[in-house]
Amino acid sequence: MELRDLIIAHSEKAYQQYLPHLSIDCVVFGFHDAKLKVLLVKMKSIVQWALPGGYLGKQEELEEAASRILKERTGADNIYLQQFRLFSKCGRSEGFFNGFPEGLWHRQRFVAAGFYALVNYTHVEPVVDAVSDACEWKDINGIPDLIMDHRTILDEALLNLRRELNYKPIGYNLLPEVFTMPELQKLYEIILGRQLNRGNFYRKMMAYDILDKLDETRKGGAHKAPNLYRFNCERYTKALQDGLKEGW
Amino acid sequence: MELRDLIIAHSEKAYQQYLPHLSIDCVVFGFHDAKLKVLLVKMKSIVQWALPGGYLGKQEELEEAASRILKERTGADNIYLQQFRLFSKCGRSEGFFNGFPEGLWHRQRFVAAGFYALVNYTHVEPVVDAVSDACEWKDINGIPDLIMDHRTILDEALLNLRRELNYKPIGYNLLPEVFTMPELQKLYEIILGRQLNRGNFYRKMMAYDILDKLDETRKGGAHKAPNLYRFNCERYTKALQDGLKEGW
Repeated sequence: MELRDLIIAHSEKAYQQYLPHLSIDCVVFGFHDAKLKVLLVKMKSIVQWALPGGYLGKQEELEEAASRILKERTGADNIYLQQFRLFSKCGRSEGFFNGFPEGLWHRQRFVAAGFYALVNYTHVEPVVDAVSDACEWKDINGIPDLIMDHRTILDEALLNLRRELNYKPIGYNLLPEVFTMPELQKLYEIILGRQLNRGNFYRKMMAYDILDKLDETRKGGAHKAPNLYRFNCERYTKALQDGLKEGW
Repeated sequence: MELRDLIIAHSEKAYQQYLPHLSIDCVVFGFHDAKLKVLLVKMKSIVQWALPGGYLGKQEELEEAASRILKERTGADNIYLQQFRLFSKCGRSEGFFNGFPEGLWHRQRFVAAGFYALVNYTHVEPVVDAVSDACEWKDINGIPDLIMDHRTILDEALLNLRRELNYKPIGYNLLPEVFTMPELQKLYEIILGRQLNRGNFYRKMMAYDILDKLDETRKGGAHKAPNLYRFNCERYTKALQDGLKEGW
């Protein structure tokens, strides 16, 4: 089927299945090779890229819908998801399907619920569906042009990640189970957007008492084998309840 | 007009004016007599109280709608507003208007956009409209039974206030222009839900360099007249951009 026919067919199904006027856009973060990545989709015959998204089922809750959308797009279950803001500017999406029939589902006004997701990069297999011709990880420092207001949604998600670094299990969800201290520090540096002092970072992290140091080290590099760490799930969860930073 | 007739009349108007399925609920915080207060509404012939709320106009953005709703309810302009979460549980509101006609606007499924608002208590004059018989400030420690999931929405708003205390101009919007250090400390204690050390609080606050100490003191108490302070708007805004707490 042609893209146009696919979209018109999807429109009919959408009227049956979804609540009108509310869409869901997901900013999926992954961490790989010391770089923060975002999962993006390219629709057929459209130059710009897009955030993975979808709609809310008539009997579905928002978090369920976001999980379903990401499962279809990544193959992964139990993804850590967090809603962070609504985007309701008039005209933000209405013009995108100009040229399609008047009553097309996609041409109504949509208020977008922004979610961010944190995934273990290695657990994700990006899925290219019938209306897209690519689904890829892009480096946060090399994001291509995005459709509609998706760049704003992405920037807001990153801002929320930064603010929530001490309240949400962000490191736990983005890193592999076992990691080195420089890897953890790099993740914090990218999210915070600035370099951190290595000694201070190490001391603070250890003072929180949320990491278990493993007996083995990572072999194979040219340098001294670095120590490996793992989050202590129980103590980490407890620490996050009050926030990791020193309080008042 | 009877309450029933008022609601049916409102339903017809609502179909014309608003987007379906999306409602707005506002948790309005004020600070008075060293107590944190929330503005609540009591609808006629309903025992429980409710958060002030409304709907999104077809050509309106969410923040505009929330401002309009609060203007109608408080008489105040330029209220500090922040969206914080969507509440989308199936059945959260649908049953509330049982007994009314099938097609009543209010009986459709609504996903609620939660806003919190910070107001200067003295600028607000609670408005009792045609369908309510009371609109009052209630102490955060004495909240009556609330309709639907409004208690959850209120609790989530308070949680967000706590997390955002160092990123948003919360003190600036809740306190009168001029205040004492014990008043500021009390506000922080209520929001954080714990007592703070007086000396530490004073030192940290002064170290942020966001307060101007006035030349006059507050007269009239039995004790030594306390010093008065005012936020230095420019320096406060700048400090909030990075967050008030010591960073990494």
